[in-house]
Amino acid sequence: MSSNQSDNDETHRGWTYESLSAARQTLISPAVKLSYKKPLWIVRGERQFLYDHNGVEYLDAYNNVCHLGHCHPAVVQAVSKQMAILNTNTRYLHTAIVEYASRITATCPPELSVCIFVNSGSEANELALRLAYAYTRQKDLIVLDSAYHGNTNAVVEMSPYKTDHPDGPRAPSHVHKVVAPDDYRGLYRRDKYAPAELGPLYAKHVEETVRKIEHEGRKVAAFFCEGILGCAGQIVLPPGYLASCYKAVRQSGGVCVADEVQVGFGRAGTHMWVFQTQDVVPDIVTLGKPIGNGFPIGAVITRPEIARALGRLEYFNTFGGNPVACKAGLAVLDAIAAEGFMENARVVGNHLLSSLRALARKHPVIGDVRGMGLFLGVELVLDRHTLEPATALTSRVIDAIQQNDKILLGTDGPFNNVVKIKPPLCFTVADADKVIAAFDSALKQETQNATILAKL
Amino acid sequence: MSSNQSDNDETHRGWTYESLSAARQTLISPAVKLSYKKPLWIVRGERQFLYDHNGVEYLDAYNNVCHLGHCHPAVVQAVSKQMAILNTNTRYLHTAIVEYASRITATCPPELSVCIFVNSGSEANELALRLAYAYTRQKDLIVLDSAYHGNTNAVVEMSPYKTDHPDGPRAPSHVHKVVAPDDYRGLYRRDKYAPAELGPLYAKHVEETVRKIEHEGRKVAAFFCEGILGCAGQIVLPPGYLASCYKAVRQSGGVCVADEVQVGFGRAGTHMWVFQTQDVVPDIVTLGKPIGNGFPIGAVITRPEIARALGRLEYFNTFGGNPVACKAGLAVLDAIAAEGFMENARVVGNHLLSSLRALARKHPVIGDVRGMGLFLGVELVLDRHTLEPATALTSRVIDAIQQNDKILLGTDGPFNNVVKIKPPLCFTVADADKVIAAFDSALKQETQNATILAKL
Repeated sequence: MSSNQSDNDETHRGWTYESLSAARQTLISPAVKLSYKKPLWIVRGERQFLYDHNGVEYLDAYNNVCHLGHCHPAVVQAVSKQMAILNTNTRYLHTAIVEYASRITATCPPELSVCIFVNSGSEANELALRLAYAYTRQKDLIVLDSAYHGNTNAVVEMSPYKTDHPDGPRAPSHVHKVVAPDDYRGLYRRDKYAPAELGPLYAKHVEETVRKIEHEGRKVAAFFCEGILGCAGQIVLPPGYLASCYKAVRQSGGVCVADEVQVGFGRAGTHMWVFQTQDVVPDIVTLGKPIGNGFPIGAVITRPEIARALGRLEYFNTFGGNPVACKAGLAVLDAIAAEGFMENARVVGNHLLSSLRALARKHPVIGDVRGMGLFLGVELVLDRHTLEPATALTSRVIDAIQQNDKILLGTDGPFNNVVKIKPPLCFTVADADKVIAAFDSALKQETQNATILAKL
Repeated sequence: MSSNQSDNDETHRGWTYESLSAARQTLISPAVKLSYKKPLWIVRGERQFLYDHNGVEYLDAYNNVCHLGHCHPAVVQAVSKQMAILNTNTRYLHTAIVEYASRITATCPPELSVCIFVNSGSEANELALRLAYAYTRQKDLIVLDSAYHGNTNAVVEMSPYKTDHPDGPRAPSHVHKVVAPDDYRGLYRRDKYAPAELGPLYAKHVEETVRKIEHEGRKVAAFFCEGILGCAGQIVLPPGYLASCYKAVRQSGGVCVADEVQVGFGRAGTHMWVFQTQDVVPDIVTLGKPIGNGFPIGAVITRPEIARALGRLEYFNTFGGNPVACKAGLAVLDAIAAEGFMENARVVGNHLLSSLRALARKHPVIGDVRGMGLFLGVELVLDRHTLEPATALTSRVIDAIQQNDKILLGTDGPFNNVVKIKPPLCFTVADADKVIAAFDSALKQETQNATILAKL
């Protein structure tokens, strides 16, 4: 379908790569960045594949928004059908919002029984914050180092990933950052401590922050934490971490928010929500990205008493909870159940994990392999003892795999030295093997180059 | 199409009005409110009509999001088609975002040449704020009394409509509220001052606020103002108002933001953007609501130097600017041009304005009729001298017109005594006449009731 002349006429629409790049540079803010040294012009997507303007197929190992695969027909059909029937706001009754709320709360612990729908993960975290402020009447927030909770003002201010950037806004005094529970590079490491020790050790930093806030005469409004830490470098929380943190925060009257925007909807392979792997019940769960397989939706799920915290103040969201969005959300939930995507995330994710760990035995530059299901991180280091980040090499590896192997990957982590693998959940074992082979050859090439350079 | 048995099976899906209402009450936060004393269960929309679960047709004189009419086929088709081809983020090149940015900036003054796309008007105002903060390195904001700029934390804090609500958060000290230029009920009124005097008089309050901020040793970050004031009660800005305000704000280094979320896209009848009727060029324009005819989109359009203000910090918006959203936006712009919607807004709007003014001569309770194009307000008062707001009566009138005449209207204004008319732009003169007739009979009925009550 992609490369005959009439298709090209339609997809190219008179543009060349050069004219399109130039026009984008003029018309779109430079803050909106393109990926890769030579950005791709993508014209079509299907399942785990993207196609560029020349019809070249790329394996997408990177996009966790098109959760079920690009252009999943059930979501396309649900949206197309509902758009032609009705798309209006939540000030009228409609079955879709009620059915979707019923279905999504059924995947959560029974305490989390009330929904508010928004348009994005940022809007969801903004609303979680409003609810926490209104419910606790406190202002102090506890977040993790390198965390990212969205692109709007209040959530940027509670995202050290942004406030620690030299061009970012400064974090306000009510935002308290604690160390991320990184057992590879962090304060307490897996080579010194047993897994069961790490959770409580890292949680002590939250406990101390709570005490510091209370010592200054205030109490905690909220503690925000992702299920797996994304921008911090795909960090899996140590066992018992959230339970200890939640206990400390709740003793101070604070609200515990589970940010599942990146990692939810079965991606972790064993549970629908990653907080479930920590055996805790949050007070608020925020959802976004994969929720509509690309259709703009976000959601806040909470306990009834927190949902009532705005009092008589109306919360109106123009697009949030409209019938089209809710039908998209329902189609995603149906497909996850019908097509066994969670189980596939577990199987393919475990295959990737063990293959990457085997690769690590061959390539000393692979310092760590971690993650759950199809949310994985591969941390590249120049030295396994100093853990010196292989930042430049990581970026070259990603570009080489894109250009030579036509596989799309991204980087993350405070040093941008973690390769991020989070493909659509229709990813197969064969796809995983392609990623492994590409990694192997890119690392071989880069290591050779480095050896040659060292000899010069 | 609406009322045969198989359609009912599909639309009712086993629900009754009572069971659906009850489930919604349990599953959706009470902060998300339903309209009308007896809320409607709406199952279908087409052009300016909505249909309830019994197949009853309602004339929608209220929803400015479905700008071209409910389920406009061009938008449905554009979204359905693109969703099946590609829906991914802005980290790849794509023609749709570039073409849409080109088309939307072409409707603006040439200075406004750079876009960033988001998912809602709230996200657009949040981003405008981030850009203003980064560009000016100042914090002080000037907003109008009763203004509403969105539902996320920072824009709620700069929305007196919310911060002055008894259950709202308090406005922070960096947000400065000036009187709204309401020439009917405000500080300077049209019965005392000529139109040309009112703009400069009201702008003096902005000038004084600028001086106060500078006197305290700071400068202005931004001045936000809607083209027509929505929540303040559909207030048309007096001539020269924005020019004087912008001058004062810019002398202090501040950025002038035109919030066109409610009123843009030709609704005012004579211009694509309402700021154009004030003969000014803003530094940032924010768009939302009608931009995708219901598909979730928002946009920020600004000058290149402001777009660069985030420096090396990336602005990533997961859904913003995706090909589906941009195709929806393009379809809306095409339809506005092809179907003459702006001209229709002018013609039908003027017909409504003159008919409502004729009605005002008959009904003393109509204190004022105002607006532009198809964004109109009818302010109801118990006394034309004291201007005592007819709040309860306004709500009864709206409910009566919904129940008896099957016409959907809303209320707004600080006293909730302004009937808001902002229908899809396919609204006809015949539709307008139905609104007038319904108003006439509802007011007659309410006045009779009031007279009877007064005699008891």
